[in-house]
Amino acid sequence: MNHPAPPAATSAPRRPFPADLLDQLRSAFGERVSTTEAVRAHHGRDESRFDPQLPDAVVFAQNTEEVQSIVRLCAQYGVPIIPYGNGSSLEGHLLAVQGGVSIDLSQMNRVLAINAEDLTVTVEPGISRKALNEALRDTGLFFPIDPGADASIGGMSATRASGTNAVRYGTMRENVLGLTAVLADGRVIKTGTRARKSSAGYDLTRLFVGSEGTLGVITEITVRLYPQPEAVSAAVCAFPSMAEAVRTVIETIQMGVPIARVEFIDSLAVRAINRHSNLTLREKHTLFFEFHGTEAGVAEQAQLVQELAAQNGGEGFEWATRPEDRNRLWNARHSAYFAMLQLRPGCRAVTTDVCVPISRLAECVLETEADLKASPLPCPIVGHVGDGNFHVAILIDPDKPEEIEEAERLNHRIVQRAIRMDGTCTGEHGVGLHKMDFLVEEHGADTVDTMRAIKHALDPHNLMNPGKIFSWAA
Amino acid sequence: MNHPAPPAATSAPRRPFPADLLDQLRSAFGERVSTTEAVRAHHGRDESRFDPQLPDAVVFAQNTEEVQSIVRLCAQYGVPIIPYGNGSSLEGHLLAVQGGVSIDLSQMNRVLAINAEDLTVTVEPGISRKALNEALRDTGLFFPIDPGADASIGGMSATRASGTNAVRYGTMRENVLGLTAVLADGRVIKTGTRARKSSAGYDLTRLFVGSEGTLGVITEITVRLYPQPEAVSAAVCAFPSMAEAVRTVIETIQMGVPIARVEFIDSLAVRAINRHSNLTLREKHTLFFEFHGTEAGVAEQAQLVQELAAQNGGEGFEWATRPEDRNRLWNARHSAYFAMLQLRPGCRAVTTDVCVPISRLAECVLETEADLKASPLPCPIVGHVGDGNFHVAILIDPDKPEEIEEAERLNHRIVQRAIRMDGTCTGEHGVGLHKMDFLVEEHGADTVDTMRAIKHALDPHNLMNPGKIFSWAA
Repeated sequence: MNHPAPPAATSAPRRPFPADLLDQLRSAFGERVSTTEAVRAHHGRDESRFDPQLPDAVVFAQNTEEVQSIVRLCAQYGVPIIPYGNGSSLEGHLLAVQGGVSIDLSQMNRVLAINAEDLTVTVEPGISRKALNEALRDTGLFFPIDPGADASIGGMSATRASGTNAVRYGTMRENVLGLTAVLADGRVIKTGTRARKSSAGYDLTRLFVGSEGTLGVITEITVRLYPQPEAVSAAVCAFPSMAEAVRTVIETIQMGVPIARVEFIDSLAVRAINRHSNLTLREKHTLFFEFHGTEAGVAEQAQLVQELAAQNGGEGFEWATRPEDRNRLWNARHSAYFAMLQLRPGCRAVTTDVCVPISRLAECVLETEADLKASPLPCPIVGHVGDGNFHVAILIDPDKPEEIEEAERLNHRIVQRAIRMDGTCTGEHGVGLHKMDFLVEEHGADTVDTMRAIKHALDPHNLMNPGKIFSWAA
Repeated sequence: MNHPAPPAATSAPRRPFPADLLDQLRSAFGERVSTTEAVRAHHGRDESRFDPQLPDAVVFAQNTEEVQSIVRLCAQYGVPIIPYGNGSSLEGHLLAVQGGVSIDLSQMNRVLAINAEDLTVTVEPGISRKALNEALRDTGLFFPIDPGADASIGGMSATRASGTNAVRYGTMRENVLGLTAVLADGRVIKTGTRARKSSAGYDLTRLFVGSEGTLGVITEITVRLYPQPEAVSAAVCAFPSMAEAVRTVIETIQMGVPIARVEFIDSLAVRAINRHSNLTLREKHTLFFEFHGTEAGVAEQAQLVQELAAQNGGEGFEWATRPEDRNRLWNARHSAYFAMLQLRPGCRAVTTDVCVPISRLAECVLETEADLKASPLPCPIVGHVGDGNFHVAILIDPDKPEEIEEAERLNHRIVQRAIRMDGTCTGEHGVGLHKMDFLVEEHGADTVDTMRAIKHALDPHNLMNPGKIFSWAA
C-alpha cells in the first residue's frame, strides 16, 4: 500500500491501549466487545479514499448509559473514542488515527417518540434515514433530509449533512431541535427542547451538529418532520450548456419558487447514470426537478420553472408524475456515485464538495469544468445546485500515487476558487481528515483557533475523535 | 426606589474604572466618549422592569477596528464591555451590573453589501430592521424577521430574536449566514460564508447568535433575504374560546399550510388594541393571519384556513387585502405592547415569553389563563401561536413590591409549566438577567455548565457583558 497519507493529523501517534481497559470493557459488555481484525477493519474506514486505520476495539452500545460507561472507562485510561453510525462518511471521519475504541451505535436504532401533532420525532442515533421514514409511514409525515446514502441520523447530525431536499427543507442545522450527548468526562447533557424556537442560552444543539464526534457522543436526537405533500411531481430537462442550466436554477431561486429539489448532472454523469440505471436520458447537461405542494401549487411552480427552462434553451422538459417514474428518476440520481465509479472499473473517487453563493455558481462550475478538461482523469459533476453546492467525482486508480496527487491538486484548486467566491470548502460532507488545511484557508487561523478553544474546554484530554477537523495544537 | 433587585447576577460588585482608561478612550475617540449621567442612564437600561444600572462610560464606535481598540483597552484594564444597539431588549441585557464601558453601535448602521442575486445582505450591527428594509425597497427583496420593536440587527442576532413572521421564515438562528465578531482579547474573527450551507467546522455563527454579548461584540452580519411575495393577504377572525383559536392554528400547521403569520390576541388585548389604535375589532379571543405567495397560492391557503376556522367556531372571518388595511391591522398588532400598558396608566409590564410544542399550546395557555384569573393583576395575552410562543404582559405598579413579587410568581409558574411540557422559558427575548435561574431549571446544571465552559474558554477574564445568561461560577 503506497498511498500518500491523509494531508494532516496522522502525525499524532497511536496511543497505548491498556489490557486492563479491554478487560473492563469485556466484563461490562461481554460479546458486544470485539477486537477481531475484520470488525476493527470495518470500523476503521469510511467511503473516503483513505486506507483504513483500525481502532483497538469496537463496542456495540445499546443505550445512553452504556455509552456513558464506555466513555468513563476510556477517559480513565486516556483512550480515544470514535462514534460509528453507518460508515458512510466521505472525509476520513471514522479512521482511528490515534487508535482507541469505536463505539458502534447501530444497535441504538429505536424511534423513541413520534410527536405527530408537533411534527417532531426523537430517535436514537443509529437509525438510518430510510428506516426512520419507514417508521413514519402511517403518520402522513416525513423526514426530508436526504444525503443519498442511507446514513444514520446520528452521523448526519455529526456532519451537518443535507442533500437533494435542502433547497426547500434546509439541512441538519435547521432540522435538529435538540439532542442528548455524552461529554468527554462522561456527563450526559440535553440541549434544546421540543419547542420550535428558543432563546435560552448558547445554542449547544447547533454546536454539536457538525462537530464530527469531536465534542461528545450524540445518543438521542429530536428532529423536525414535515407533512407529506399532497402532490409531488418531477421533471427532467436537458440544456445546451452548463451556463444555461445554472441560470435556470438561479432564476428559479430568485423568484422564490419553493422548489423541493433541483439537481444538476453533467453529460458525463448522465452517461454513467444511463448505463447503471438502464435509462435513456439525453447525454447532455441536465437538471432534475421535484415540486412539492398542493395540486394547484405544484402545477403553478412547474409551469413557472418550465417557462424559465425554455427561455434558457432547455430541451425536452419531461414529466414524471407517477410515483414509479419519479422513484426511478431519483433512485438513478441517488445511485450516481456508484454509477460514476463504474465509468472506470476498479477506481475510487475523490469527491469535492464546495458550495458557493448562487450568483457565483455558473462561474465556479465553468472555471472548474475548464480545469477538469485539462486533466487526464475522468471527472463527472453532479450538484445540489439550488444551494450552490456541487460535487466533482475525480476518478482515480488508487494504486497510482500520481493520480491521487493530481486529484488532490484539482480538489485544492476547486476549494480555493470557492473560497475566493465567498463560498465554503464543504457544503455537506464535513472536514474529517481531508479538509483540515482547507478549513484554515477558509476561515483563517483565529477563527479555527476559536473552535480549538471550545474543543480544549469541553474535551481537555483530546479523547473525542482526536485528530479530526483541526489539529489539537495551533 | 424600592424595587426588588433582578433575581441574580447583581451580587458581583462593580469593578473599578481606572482614570487612565478614560484618558486613553478620550484621546482615541474624543467627543465620541461620554460620561454624562444622561447618556450613561440611557445606556444602562432597557425595556425590562429593572432599574437602570449605569455603565461608567459610553463610546460611540464607527467601525470594527474601533471596536477592536476599545475592547483591547478595556481588556488591558479588566473593565467590562456591553454592546448596545437600539435598547429594545426586555430582560435586563444592557444593565451594567458590574460597571464598564457601553459600546454604542448605532453609528455602525451601514448596509455593506446587497447581493440581490444571492438573496443576502451584509450589514453593520447598528442598522434597525426597518432601516434595512427601507434600504432594500428597490430590490424586490425583504428581510422578514420582525420582533415588533424596531430593534437593531446586531441586537436581534445577539438575542436570537424572531417575532410574527417566524412561523414561515424562521428566526435569527436560521437567517444569519455569517458574522464578524471582536473577541474578548481583541482578535477579530469571521464566521460562516455567504454560501447557503456549510459543514466546515464548528458552527460559530450559531454560537454567537443568542450569546447576548457575552462572547464578543458582533460588528458585521450577513443575513438571508426573501423575494417580496407576489401577493399578500391578511385576515382577522374571532373565536368563542381560546381552545378553539389554538386548535385552528394547530390544524393549519399540521396541514403544512405555509402561513406567513398567525397571531393570537386575547379579548383583553383586543380591547387594548381597539382603544389604542382606534379599531373596532370584536373583543373576543382573536387570530390575525397573513398569507404570502402567488395570487393563486394565497387564495388557496386562505380558503383552507378559513374552512378550518369555521370548523372551530370562528366568527366573522374578515379580509384585509388592500395594503393600507393590512398595515393598519399589523401596526395595531405591533403596538399591542404599548396598547396593553395603557390598560393601566403608569404601569410597567413583566412580559413572559415561554414557547411550547404546539400540541401542548392549548393546555399551556388554558392553565395559564386560569392562573391569571386568580390574580389581581391585569394580564393580557398575545402570542406567535404558530410557533407555540406566547407572551403574558403582567401589568404592575412598579412602586409596589408586592405586585412585582406577584408578577414574578406568575412568571415562574408559567415557565415551570412550559418546561414540564417540553418547552422553553424564552422563545425569543433571551435570558439576560431575568431568566438566569430559569435557564438552569430548563436545561439542568450540566448543560449550563457546558455553556459556562465555553464562556470561560473564549472570555477568560469575564469582560464581555458579565453577569448575564448564567453566573460566572457554577
